[in-house]
Amino acid sequence: MQKINIAEKLSQFTDYWNPRIVGELNGQQVKLAKFKGEFIWHKHDNEDEMFLVINGKFSMEFRDKRVDLNEGEFLIVPRGVEHRPVAENEVSVMLFEPATTLNTGNIKDVLTKETLEKI
Amino acid sequence: MQKINIAEKLSQFTDYWNPRIVGELNGQQVKLAKFKGEFIWHKHDNEDEMFLVINGKFSMEFRDKRVDLNEGEFLIVPRGVEHRPVAENEVSVMLFEPATTLNTGNIKDVLTKETLEKI
Repeated sequence: MQKINIAEKLSQFTDYWNPRIVGELNGQQVKLAKFKGEFIWHKHDNEDEMFLVINGKFSMEFRDKRVDLNEGEFLIVPRGVEHRPVAENEVSVMLFEPATTLNTGNIKDVLTKETLEKI
Repeated sequence: MQKINIAEKLSQFTDYWNPRIVGELNGQQVKLAKFKGEFIWHKHDNEDEMFLVINGKFSMEFRDKRVDLNEGEFLIVPRGVEHRPVAENEVSVMLFEPATTLNTGNIKDVLTKETLEKI
């Protein structure tokens, strides 16, 4: 049982759209990721996803609206809802979601990460 | 589906040891709480708990050690492990835990909150 320092974990990687697992509890995982650019449209049929901005800002696009997220703000995307994160500049994000969650949801793509690294 | 600003939610209450629910996903709840002073020793038989420091610092005491947590750090306390949060000064904390989690766990006390407010 050791504490996790978010900034220290973020310093361990530089690539985008590749979440790292930094904690697990109750069948859920805590992940850290860096976003830059446009991700792909996707949805998760069985998982709600939480995005908490640690540093920077990004937008979550939906088919009918867009939510702009700044540092210290979070958004919960319910299962089944198509979404696409877009970041003009690098942003660091904490994710909280079930361990079963695939990053690209219902879409298989070059961005799909079948396994995630634990750091 | 609306974003949550953590600082704005924290500005809505001033009391200690009374977590507010600010999000729900996958049977889990996201809570915000302010701690000051010593809580009571307790454990949760069926729930792991995550504590993420938003502002300030506190210590999580265990029967055999203590973990000091600063801003931007988190700790996962596994189910069944006795713990007691202690904060010399006011600290704001985000909690992630199952919706079934009672704040004082296995102990009924004047600090027990049977129902939590959603803000």
